[in-house]
Amino acid sequence: MHYSIQQIADALGADCQGDTGLIVERAAEPGDAAATDLAMAMSPKYAETLSGGAARVAVLWEGADWQALGLEAAIFVPRPRMAMAGITAMLDRGQGVAPGIHPSAVIDSTAEIAEDAAIGPLAVIGARVRIGKGAVIGPHCVIGMDVVLGENATLREMVSIGARAQIGDRFLAQPGARIGSDGFSFVTPEVSDVENVRKTMGDKGDARAQSWLRIHSLGAVEIGDDVEVGANCTVDNGTIRNTCIGSGSKLDNLVHVGHNTRVGQDCLLCGQSGVSGSVEIGNNVVLGGQTGVVDNIYIGDGVIAAGGTKILSNVPAGRVLMGYPGIKMETHTDIYKVQRRLPRMARDVEALKKAVFKQPPSD
Amino acid sequence: MHYSIQQIADALGADCQGDTGLIVERAAEPGDAAATDLAMAMSPKYAETLSGGAARVAVLWEGADWQALGLEAAIFVPRPRMAMAGITAMLDRGQGVAPGIHPSAVIDSTAEIAEDAAIGPLAVIGARVRIGKGAVIGPHCVIGMDVVLGENATLREMVSIGARAQIGDRFLAQPGARIGSDGFSFVTPEVSDVENVRKTMGDKGDARAQSWLRIHSLGAVEIGDDVEVGANCTVDNGTIRNTCIGSGSKLDNLVHVGHNTRVGQDCLLCGQSGVSGSVEIGNNVVLGGQTGVVDNIYIGDGVIAAGGTKILSNVPAGRVLMGYPGIKMETHTDIYKVQRRLPRMARDVEALKKAVFKQPPSD
Amino acid sequence: MHYSIQQIADALGADCQGDTGLIVERAAEPGDAAATDLAMAMSPKYAETLSGGAARVAVLWEGADWQALGLEAAIFVPRPRMAMAGITAMLDRGQGVAPGIHPSAVIDSTAEIAEDAAIGPLAVIGARVRIGKGAVIGPHCVIGMDVVLGENATLREMVSIGARAQIGDRFLAQPGARIGSDGFSFVTPEVSDVENVRKTMGDKGDARAQSWLRIHSLGAVEIGDDVEVGANCTVDNGTIRNTCIGSGSKLDNLVHVGHNTRVGQDCLLCGQSGVSGSVEIGNNVVLGGQTGVVDNIYIGDGVIAAGGTKILSNVPAGRVLMGYPGIKMETHTDIYKVQRRLPRMARDVEALKKAVFKQPPSD
Repeated sequence: MHYSIQQIADALGADCQGDTGLIVERAAEPGDAAATDLAMAMSPKYAETLSGGAARVAVLWEGADWQALGLEAAIFVPRPRMAMAGITAMLDRGQGVAPGIHPSAVIDSTAEIAEDAAIGPLAVIGARVRIGKGAVIGPHCVIGMDVVLGENATLREMVSIGARAQIGDRFLAQPGARIGSDGFSFVTPEVSDVENVRKTMGDKGDARAQSWLRIHSLGAVEIGDDVEVGANCTVDNGTIRNTCIGSGSKLDNLVHVGHNTRVGQDCLLCGQSGVSGSVEIGNNVVLGGQTGVVDNIYIGDGVIAAGGTKILSNVPAGRVLMGYPGIKMETHTDIYKVQRRLPRMARDVEALKKAVFKQPPSD
Repeated sequence: MHYSIQQIADALGADCQGDTGLIVERAAEPGDAAATDLAMAMSPKYAETLSGGAARVAVLWEGADWQALGLEAAIFVPRPRMAMAGITAMLDRGQGVAPGIHPSAVIDSTAEIAEDAAIGPLAVIGARVRIGKGAVIGPHCVIGMDVVLGENATLREMVSIGARAQIGDRFLAQPGARIGSDGFSFVTPEVSDVENVRKTMGDKGDARAQSWLRIHSLGAVEIGDDVEVGANCTVDNGTIRNTCIGSGSKLDNLVHVGHNTRVGQDCLLCGQSGVSGSVEIGNNVVLGGQTGVVDNIYIGDGVIAAGGTKILSNVPAGRVLMGYPGIKMETHTDIYKVQRRLPRMARDVEALKKAVFKQPPSD
Repeated sequence: MHYSIQQIADALGADCQGDTGLIVERAAEPGDAAATDLAMAMSPKYAETLSGGAARVAVLWEGADWQALGLEAAIFVPRPRMAMAGITAMLDRGQGVAPGIHPSAVIDSTAEIAEDAAIGPLAVIGARVRIGKGAVIGPHCVIGMDVVLGENATLREMVSIGARAQIGDRFLAQPGARIGSDGFSFVTPEVSDVENVRKTMGDKGDARAQSWLRIHSLGAVEIGDDVEVGANCTVDNGTIRNTCIGSGSKLDNLVHVGHNTRVGQDCLLCGQSGVSGSVEIGNNVVLGGQTGVVDNIYIGDGVIAAGGTKILSNVPAGRVLMGYPGIKMETHTDIYKVQRRLPRMARDVEALKKAVFKQPPSD
């Protein structure tokens, strides 16, 4: 890939100055940049390291003095991370899946695959699968029977999609992502101790030990447009209805979404977060890394949970959460500040007891 | 799949009324049900939505007035989730692995595979593997040398089973499950700071920084009957003895079981829970989602841990746990209630100090 | 594998006594040992169970009375776990990947593979890949274009390595490990509520709901020598620079390392721990199971985090951490002790208020 500074600036809708015909091949950190690299120096802090590299051109913040930085040309961007989105999309060299269908792929004769799709080595495509135009299916992917995959899908290697999943356009799946595993749903013949504990918050009652019977997943997974799923993440099939991931939502690596759960639009589920079954998640929700969500609750639009939050009950729209159990971040912070002083407070209380009640400190 | 209402009721051992010869093809939520669907309306709340769909037949709670609900026939069940187990098992359309051995599978000539087994495309079966009758091995599964797999196993796509694993009957593995990865076991030439910290609860002593030497896993994994393992979960080989999963136990997606650990019978390990090495877990234990268990402890029969619990020491049988570290759920709740009031309590203590000691509040 | 007691002792640099010509085939726990097994009885506690097995030879602690234990020969070791490293390496029977390149593997004609490498069935090796001597690549592995893999690599089944990864010698990857997935990096056109919350610790400001734009990963993954990565773990590509794992570091199962993060040398990242993007981790750091690390912080050399710790800010070298948020383990323990007594302390405070202020207890 080769672009001139002018071409990149135009694609970003950004200003550029200097010798804008200069050609770059790659993006680089300022200190590592070679002479044919575009240095990403969007803040003065990063620009300081420009002299350690050989960059002749850089992306800078608005108003930066590019000539004082010793550059021959520069692009100026108002919001650096937005520029990163545009530049990295242009310069992405991809994974090299060759056009066409690799002869080693195993493709059911009833599958309908768009003519321009690229299917990698040893991929398996099941009966009646429909794959839209522009798809890039990596090596070793398995797409189960009756799956519908929209236009411009990109599946990295070893992605699996269970039977009957319905997936929108521009789907992007990282290696090892699992769509359409069966839900984790079991029942005991009689009321179990877990059911009792959940009702009483701690009392097992007199339930006897029993074996678990499986509830099969008859539903599938339904995914909107512009969804990305991370490496080795898992999205279970629904029991009767489908499990749903709304358009624009992104799941990070090792994220788990349980059966029947509905994730809204434009949500971010960060690394290793897990959502149990039958949860309703609104739009624009952000779950930080390792967040957990208990089953059968709802999470309103725009909720943000800090990393590590364990959400154990319904959350109204717009709330910012933290902690185990997850509570309003401000409340959590207030409590936490006192918690840090607890040992001193305990000594204070003992001293007060001694003074007021003339009693010896308890152990 | 087509069943009459009578056939389904008979299979469940349940009563049915109305035109019980009506045929259904699928189960559906009441509001989504088509005319050939069986609506799952086991509670009045669900039955309310029947009018939104086109269902002519439904599964209802005992004593429900099916005619008032506008139905032509109904099945009546005392324990809805138990009925779900039976109905979903009957109506499961599966993943479509064709009978016989797919020509693209790579099968060692010394493997013994039951005649009726179905082996999907590109599966790899190693030397001396034994696979029992009724097995369905999905596409892209890898079964290592000397593995024994009992009768009626179902492996979804991309399951891997390491060499020498011994697995009972009716094993069910979700996509990407890993049985028989090597244990995470390392040692430093001299005593390490981690060893010191564990002994002293915090003091690293004077151990010097060292590199880690690997302890190989010579043991394998041993799994009982009726075990299910979730998508992308991992069960490590034992070091000398085998890691064991008892009959009837179920592991959810992304669950980790470390080397040497023994999980008893009929346990549930929910999504993303993790058990370290050399843990002894009794029977009928339930670990909620994202539970963690430290190494070298035991967890007695019937223990239930709420989601997010971190279990750092031995747990007697029957206990219900919560928190980090995991303690009795009741104790956790009592402490938590006070914690919510901590900011006010801190103010109270300051006021008391001022009143009793005439001292200014501390910062 | 067959070794004499003398051979094993020599390999360990350990003393042995008795009939040191005796041959053993396997290692076994003392109580399970057959007559041709080497019993691992490195402490008096384990030696007690020797009589339950049929072992004639054992590995014992220094100074043990082997004859009194009824043995015919014994090896004496000063540090049992170090001996385990040596013995298990000798007796590891492996996974049986046959020498040479399996005919079903799909190998790009431009790949350079050392002559003695073993490549399992259905592996896929991309363009310009370079694989060093002594490599064992398991079945169903996918190695992307331009990857460099050093000498003596061992990849278990279904490992994937994304394009352009650079990996040192003696790399060991467990089944399903994912190297080089794309980073989880997104941006909204305008400032998002998440950005506001991070700045203010809780206030979303007036940001409007927006969709996410993807920042592609142009960087790759760079891995030193002697690194091991666990089953189904994930290491993301960097955005501009590479994500790095230093020599001697070991990642357990289901561990996640985010984009741009640099893990130092000789670190242990235990099961299900997760490190966000752009984290700098020093050398000899140990993260216990299910530890989480927020993005854009540093963790100094020699830091040890107990299982379940959530690290939310920079950590100086040498610190031992615990809790959510992670703080010094000693401080955490001090606070925790008081926390356990909180319900009593709350009652004390109420009694004090009543006595001092004559006010009724608050609810």
